[in-house]
Amino acid sequence: MIEINPPRDFLAFGLHAGVKAKAVPDFGAVFSTRSCVGTAIFTQNRYPGHPVVLGRPLAELARFQAVVVNSGNSNVATGPAGRQIAEDCVAAAVRSLGVDRECILPCSTGVIGRLPPREVLVGQYGRLRERLSSPDMAGFARAIMTTDTVPKLSARELSGGVRLCGVAKGVGMIEPDMATLLAFVFTDAAILAEDLKRLIRFVANRTFNRVSIDGDTSTSDTFAILANGAAEVRVGFSAELYDALEAAVDVFDPSLLESLPFADSTSREFVSALLAICRDLTRMIARDGEGSSKLIELDILNAANRQQALKVGRELINSPLFKTAVRGADPNWGRIIMAIGNVRSEDIPFDGLRITIGGHPLNMGDNSAEELGNVSAGLAGPEVRIAISLGTGSARETLWGCDLTEDYVRVNAYYTT
Amino acid sequence: MIEINPPRDFLAFGLHAGVKAKAVPDFGAVFSTRSCVGTAIFTQNRYPGHPVVLGRPLAELARFQAVVVNSGNSNVATGPAGRQIAEDCVAAAVRSLGVDRECILPCSTGVIGRLPPREVLVGQYGRLRERLSSPDMAGFARAIMTTDTVPKLSARELSGGVRLCGVAKGVGMIEPDMATLLAFVFTDAAILAEDLKRLIRFVANRTFNRVSIDGDTSTSDTFAILANGAAEVRVGFSAELYDALEAAVDVFDPSLLESLPFADSTSREFVSALLAICRDLTRMIARDGEGSSKLIELDILNAANRQQALKVGRELINSPLFKTAVRGADPNWGRIIMAIGNVRSEDIPFDGLRITIGGHPLNMGDNSAEELGNVSAGLAGPEVRIAISLGTGSARETLWGCDLTEDYVRVNAYYTT
Repeated sequence: MIEINPPRDFLAFGLHAGVKAKAVPDFGAVFSTRSCVGTAIFTQNRYPGHPVVLGRPLAELARFQAVVVNSGNSNVATGPAGRQIAEDCVAAAVRSLGVDRECILPCSTGVIGRLPPREVLVGQYGRLRERLSSPDMAGFARAIMTTDTVPKLSARELSGGVRLCGVAKGVGMIEPDMATLLAFVFTDAAILAEDLKRLIRFVANRTFNRVSIDGDTSTSDTFAILANGAAEVRVGFSAELYDALEAAVDVFDPSLLESLPFADSTSREFVSALLAICRDLTRMIARDGEGSSKLIELDILNAANRQQALKVGRELINSPLFKTAVRGADPNWGRIIMAIGNVRSEDIPFDGLRITIGGHPLNMGDNSAEELGNVSAGLAGPEVRIAISLGTGSARETLWGCDLTEDYVRVNAYYTT
Repeated sequence: MIEINPPRDFLAFGLHAGVKAKAVPDFGAVFSTRSCVGTAIFTQNRYPGHPVVLGRPLAELARFQAVVVNSGNSNVATGPAGRQIAEDCVAAAVRSLGVDRECILPCSTGVIGRLPPREVLVGQYGRLRERLSSPDMAGFARAIMTTDTVPKLSARELSGGVRLCGVAKGVGMIEPDMATLLAFVFTDAAILAEDLKRLIRFVANRTFNRVSIDGDTSTSDTFAILANGAAEVRVGFSAELYDALEAAVDVFDPSLLESLPFADSTSREFVSALLAICRDLTRMIARDGEGSSKLIELDILNAANRQQALKVGRELINSPLFKTAVRGADPNWGRIIMAIGNVRSEDIPFDGLRITIGGHPLNMGDNSAEELGNVSAGLAGPEVRIAISLGTGSARETLWGCDLTEDYVRVNAYYTT
């Protein structure tokens, strides 16, 4: 477990409530004892869970002050009875915490199509206040896990004292789009709601929206940021800066961030830390992908535009044949060619392609045994880095994924997860 | 092996040429001793193999009289050297068979990115005439296999004497679009080129273009039909009939075909037999999907239009979480909901969905243990039939696929296939 400095005036917990049959944590919450600027983005799936349906219209108000999560049951496809349970939960939280309904973000994650246990959940939501006595972010991180094998936390403290802490879960049914899985960042910085709403989309599009475990988009994806101002340090950024960030080729390069027109160094540090935390969590998600043995980091370079880079990256990171080749470190690079060629909407001349696997440039057309050995070596470690230059421009995207293993099938075939 | 009556005046063979290291058949051909009406459709992958590049512009001429296939090497991404080998092969076939270049359809299937053995292939193409002494369709079917575990043949004989024989291969890298894998139908019916060109697209869109093993589209997909007229029976169909076929809800229903405006019963029998053969082969491909243990037949019913039905069917048949649930007969029907909800371009109200698994209607919202047992039972056999009524119209599509198993990973991870 990593050491984290929790942001000030946030309380958190996790416990076993009984949604899961097994005696493991399945319920938790994070609550700011002072009012927050807090917003969220959600799954684009057409059949979202009832908690998503309740939370989505409130995101625009940017008043979220509490995040409450149960794992083990997603409350999706459960009809009016499931909707009623979600509403009763929120009402119980309002009574217990003494805040407005707009301040509560409920989340459920787990099996689809089963009614969650009403008494268990409404009972827990009604006892939130008494559970919230310490900033136990690690306990919260454990409580939101489903098939995750490790809790996922990342934190930073800025030179001016601002603290940020990120928590995420999710290892399957993952190809986020405008939101992802469950991911939360809590910070004691002070920020305007409008800034936060822009920032959350920008960060999601550079991190969580670039991970795919299996190409399936969850019905419960939620990504929220809550900022309570307790550090008494204000961060902000202009529309001009936002445009510069959107246009930036590599936002993870600190030297590149230096050159952008931030109003002050704290705001730059804040954006850099937020990106770093979300990238940490994204990599943890990919590394812990169901059954996976390897993290894949895929750079698509020299594309005509970011959209083209993203299309190529998604085709490849979701190709079962590519993912199985990575699993076995099989130097079958032809599958990369196959996947790029399946992006039919893009004209990417074959002769302009350059591929690097684990730092070794690929000799396209035919290979010596030594070259194939280098490809195998590049696919052999726990972190596989592949760079593909499309030769059609100067845009880039980075995507994360994982290999496809026998264990992915075992995890998903034989019991309901 | 099934008993087949080969169509008249077609010769065929398969043998071990040495493209594969293992002593198994890897080279074969089918040749009509009389001139043919023969056309083909090909993969939409942007980086097709050199044989596809050579064959595609000739399809419009509809003069294919010989199909020559090697397995073990697809001659894709092999640069100018690979192109030269493909051209030399065709030139050798022209010399050996004494036909025009437009009559030769070359095909290669197997690993991508390795130069095929020039001497082996050109030598075999040069000896085609001497190899062609009997109608050994079964030998040809074995020679074109890659990771297939069984050869795939299907045949019909019409009441008027016309014979049709279909041969296919392909069990991975399969999500065809306007063509598929390698599939060939040979017939001794007489048919006009224009009729055949329309018919091949129609049949592909109801059969081969509806199968997906893993969502990856091969660089070598080719589907050809050769008709040599040796039965001295003419078949044909009008533009009006073609429109009626396109609009038909269920072309596999013989009684429905009865009601369509065919010019004569032989033409109707011909279309029915062609559809049946291609459906047989499609089901064999799905059943033999790499590592698969179950064939999935998926009917999408009551859709707003065929495009909507197809989008929903493709999302589901390619969902790793759905495919693994089928593998373990896990009654996790929520994953079906998740997949349908990910077809974001379509407005399909949740309340109108009706799902039947193995004949058991699903009670959406929550389930008794008995109901979940019925779902498990419906997913348990070697053939899983799922019907999903979208409640948005009256269109339908049938798709085929297979489960995702540990063996899929094993087949694809550890050695180059």
